Amino acid sequence: MAILLWELAGADPARRFSPYCWRIRLALRHKGLEFQTRPWRFTDKALIAHSGGETVPVLEDGGRVVRDSWAIAEYLEATYPDRPSIFGGAAAKAVARFVTDWTESVVQAGMMPFVARDILDHVAEADRVYFRQSREARLRATLEAFCAGREDKLPAFHRTLTPLRLTLSRQPFLAGDAPAWPDFAVFGSFQWARCISPFGLIGTGPIHDWRERMLDAYDGEGRKAVGY
Amino acid sequence: MAILLWELAGADPARRFSPYCWRIRLALRHKGLEFQTRPWRFTDKALIAHSGGETVPVLEDGGRVVRDSWAIAEYLEATYPDRPSIFGGAAAKAVARFVTDWTESVVQAGMMPFVARDILDHVAEADRVYFRQSREARLRATLEAFCAGREDKLPAFHRTLTPLRLTLSRQPFLAGDAPAWPDFAVFGSFQWARCISPFGLIGTGPIHDWRERMLDAYDGEGRKAVGY
Repeated sequence: MAILLWELAGADPARRFSPYCWRIRLALRHKGLEFQTRPWRFTDKALIAHSGGETVPVLEDGGRVVRDSWAIAEYLEATYPDRPSIFGGAAAKAVARFVTDWTESVVQAGMMPFVARDILDHVAEADRVYFRQSREARLRATLEAFCAGREDKLPAFHRTLTPLRLTLSRQPFLAGDAPAWPDFAVFGSFQWARCISPFGLIGTGPIHDWRERMLDAYDGEGRKAVGY
Repeated sequence: MAILLWELAGADPARRFSPYCWRIRLALRHKGLEFQTRPWRFTDKALIAHSGGETVPVLEDGGRVVRDSWAIAEYLEATYPDRPSIFGGAAAKAVARFVTDWTESVVQAGMMPFVARDILDHVAEADRVYFRQSREARLRATLEAFCAGREDKLPAFHRTLTPLRLTLSRQPFLAGDAPAWPDFAVFGSFQWARCISPFGLIGTGPIHDWRERMLDAYDGEGRKAVGY
């Protein structure tokens, strides 16, 4: 039985825009594992209740159910050790944790003011009220107010990407000569933005060029995605 | 002939406060290599001209001269492959580059407003004019103006350390269960501040606790340092 990946989808079931699901999609491609995906919406909590959580990604593999992108990566690494490594060993995995934490606290959080409102245009009808209410409670502002004047916020956002820009000016991928988890983690956020928003937040330079390489990786898995 | 490490020193030759030299001091301890150090001051350019550069660390090893902390780490790794690895392999080294770039652009740069003025109190007499002029030209402000109201800047600085705090709340060191280059890189900046300034910028929590572990590592190499 093929691996099954539950992925966040929009009104168009082919629009897959979760940054965390993108990590796992690329990790599965990296390992060369066959998998099927199933679209999931924010309000489909019952469909993944068997995972013990309320968010995707959720991975099912021969009766085993794993949730949370980091835990899924660890599961795949432990279960398929003879396939290409997602982390590149224990030392690399430890440092990859830092890149993941940087991604979530700096990149993902920093992108919110640019794309949060645009998400609303693409979520399934059943998700619209949930999405607005849950995000506005978290952001303590309406989506519209939170994203107002986003062009003016670009320079500050780009400054927060300085370490990424420096590293990618030295080497083709965060993981070195070929992509691995650190690239999946950061790319997931860029792919989230690309799949949901027409706003150009990436600019030009080493980060843009790296994203092009990531879009092309694994037979263009990222580039084929429904997005902008 | 023992390895020789040129290190930045203050008026007190025992006060070694370069963040970049601290990386190498710990890397040498990590590899268990014998070494001697020699104090160097900002204006001692002629003493290290044979390195091809104007900054420390400079490492001399059996007639070979290497400068720049990253290049020195690569040299040590290549020259002493049978000793404990500084990076933990090629994959970990690639990701360690990101931690290094993050350290330099976020941590090191972010600490400047807290300690830049205090450095002046500890540099050698011959360095005082050079230090003030070169730093004030770079900062486009007097050291005093640049460091004014530093207490008010602490919360914003602490926010920039969020990814470090997250990772160190999960694992004892950035490199995992034991310290390696990513820890040396970040700790170097904290040790720079500690060796030169009485200002308490670290607060409490996982980062503080990790710094305590780093101060104790390698027989307390960091804790023995002349500082605050």
